[in-house]
Amino acid sequence: MRDVYEKIDGGVAAPEGFRAAGVSCGIKTNARLDLAVIASDVPASAAAVFTTNLAQAAPVLVSRENFRRSAGRMRAVVVNSGCANACTGIDGMQHAQEMVDLTAKTLSVEPSAVLVASTGVIGVKLPMENIGRGIGDAVRALSRDGGPAAARAIMTTDPFPKEVAVEVHSDAGTFRVGGIAKGSGMIEPLMATMLAFVTLDAAVEPPLLQRALKAACDETFNAISVDGECSTNDCVFALASGVAGVTLKEADYPVLVDALRQVCEPLAIGIVRGGEGATKLITIRVVGAQSNDEARRTARAIANSPLVKTAIHGGDPNWGRLVAVMGRSGSAFLLARAAVRIGPVELFSNGTPFDDRSPDAAVYLKGTDVQLEVDLGTGGSGTSHMWTCDLTAEYVKINAEYRT
Amino acid sequence: MRDVYEKIDGGVAAPEGFRAAGVSCGIKTNARLDLAVIASDVPASAAAVFTTNLAQAAPVLVSRENFRRSAGRMRAVVVNSGCANACTGIDGMQHAQEMVDLTAKTLSVEPSAVLVASTGVIGVKLPMENIGRGIGDAVRALSRDGGPAAARAIMTTDPFPKEVAVEVHSDAGTFRVGGIAKGSGMIEPLMATMLAFVTLDAAVEPPLLQRALKAACDETFNAISVDGECSTNDCVFALASGVAGVTLKEADYPVLVDALRQVCEPLAIGIVRGGEGATKLITIRVVGAQSNDEARRTARAIANSPLVKTAIHGGDPNWGRLVAVMGRSGSAFLLARAAVRIGPVELFSNGTPFDDRSPDAAVYLKGTDVQLEVDLGTGGSGTSHMWTCDLTAEYVKINAEYRT
Repeated sequence: MRDVYEKIDGGVAAPEGFRAAGVSCGIKTNARLDLAVIASDVPASAAAVFTTNLAQAAPVLVSRENFRRSAGRMRAVVVNSGCANACTGIDGMQHAQEMVDLTAKTLSVEPSAVLVASTGVIGVKLPMENIGRGIGDAVRALSRDGGPAAARAIMTTDPFPKEVAVEVHSDAGTFRVGGIAKGSGMIEPLMATMLAFVTLDAAVEPPLLQRALKAACDETFNAISVDGECSTNDCVFALASGVAGVTLKEADYPVLVDALRQVCEPLAIGIVRGGEGATKLITIRVVGAQSNDEARRTARAIANSPLVKTAIHGGDPNWGRLVAVMGRSGSAFLLARAAVRIGPVELFSNGTPFDDRSPDAAVYLKGTDVQLEVDLGTGGSGTSHMWTCDLTAEYVKINAEYRT
Repeated sequence: MRDVYEKIDGGVAAPEGFRAAGVSCGIKTNARLDLAVIASDVPASAAAVFTTNLAQAAPVLVSRENFRRSAGRMRAVVVNSGCANACTGIDGMQHAQEMVDLTAKTLSVEPSAVLVASTGVIGVKLPMENIGRGIGDAVRALSRDGGPAAARAIMTTDPFPKEVAVEVHSDAGTFRVGGIAKGSGMIEPLMATMLAFVTLDAAVEPPLLQRALKAACDETFNAISVDGECSTNDCVFALASGVAGVTLKEADYPVLVDALRQVCEPLAIGIVRGGEGATKLITIRVVGAQSNDEARRTARAIANSPLVKTAIHGGDPNWGRLVAVMGRSGSAFLLARAAVRIGPVELFSNGTPFDDRSPDAAVYLKGTDVQLEVDLGTGGSGTSHMWTCDLTAEYVKINAEYRT
């Protein structure tokens, strides 16, 4: 049987066995939602991908430790937005641990079965009185309908919440996968990026879940870039409740990765689409590389090129800037065999520009979804893709005024 | 005797034996200067540093070849702005060679003794009729007073011309060094960047000049970044006429490097200060690294961080963004021993923020010259510096509208 993926409502609480809530406890202004709890009714298998940044925030350090101690069996995730609890020293570590302890106590579970995450301004201490009140409120509010509120409660500068859920009909049985994510600055994943929480109601042993999560992240969250930054707080957690009565084993690895990807890819694209100041989603495809790694390196260089991102913003089919990035990206490159396509329009190939096609490309660039395909010209079979967004004056404005 | 460096007028034509000119031949609009010739009355020793971009423009390829054929003895440099003659295929190669041939013929020198450079839009062919007229006009206009016009004629989006000349009083004797440079987008040097032309009237054998130019570039043109881009056309040429009657030998290597640096550093800083949309010059100093290379890697990551550059633009002493970049830069890093100073204000040290000092740092950031110093906390003695500029809405505007 061919696997069927059906979009469903409910986000992170769509899979059976999960409840979620998002509340406002006053970390952010204007009564915006700023604290979320996701709870599993039973001990869930867990997997996690953490930031590779060496300046790791307190919640990352505490979650890593709990993850290790609980052998991948988790009951809950507690998350706040508005304050990253990063670079906050000993106090920050205590605060992250208190978030865990309070959540565990309120839910009557072991503290080591709780993961914690924070996002927002770096270097500011958590207002623990607000956090305490928020955790109490959130645990009381936990429900199967709480996914959308949880998605909102983890937002910082995101212009819209990101949540996805699918029902998977596979040979192994029918199960559900849901997830929420937040961006939207400091987005360039190396292993992990931003915050994302994925739930599923199939039963999966932690090592298999970890392997599948890593594989799904590589092609989704690790293939996006808003600004080439990598944050101190990035993590992706996956929890599998097993409540659906379906068990995924080694033989089901492909469907597990696909199922996770069905949720992670739209969340990842949502982060880029909601990137700070973004007006266009740019999909970059690199072909003709000596290896997939070289293709990814060039894709990443294009995704982070301010000159490419501003040209796309201005609707300018400036293929010369793409060639310049290809040449400096560090990957093998043969100008005389290289090609650049903007949407359906080939503007450069075999060393020759086709500038008479520029007007067609300019019309194409008026859209909000832009595909760029470049061929490095080496004749190799290496390919890769990345998603990014345009660079706009609004990005500068948001980040020049973030704390003021 | 301690070497004395005295600023003098005349730019690239200040050293004896050199004449320069800048003319308008209609490549750029509004009769702006767009073609320059720098000529040496005698065969000059030459050194060159070229872009590392694999997509090398035709003039770069032709200059490399002439440089090889002439064994580092050169008579002239011809440069146009407004059109980069890059990605222009066979025609582009012919056009670059024609620029060389015409200049050589008009000056009555060997074609292999002429270097050529172009800067401007990629992928557009040179208007050879204009170029031909311009070369004739420029050669006729060559004079000792032509430095300032040459400096203007190589500008593209530069807001002001960049020229420097110094008279060096050293044990070896008195000689002069002059130079001009242009930016100001696609600036991130890897070996070479942008265009710069340096002249001196001491006698120096080509190999010594090459070594000294490379050393001077590493600390100047290779230590600047406007936007992390590396162009297809970057080159730095140095010509030594020997007309001053002073010979610099191996023992004079330090004074030669210092003399070149006296010219290259203000030109490099000028490129950053005139970076596209820039309102602030940012000097980054990294200390406490395991090696100078690791320090440079972190300095480069900071110089290219959109979040740091927008924060400085907004006058926000957001030290957390610096810590985040330090952590992701790939260099060894110890958060608990790290430090961040913005100007004279230490905002973070040994894992502890000093946010009560933020107002002082905010006042400091109102200035147009900003010093950032970060300590990676490893206890190592590696240091490095980079110059960059802030990232502004104007940068986006310039580059979204460059060709439209």
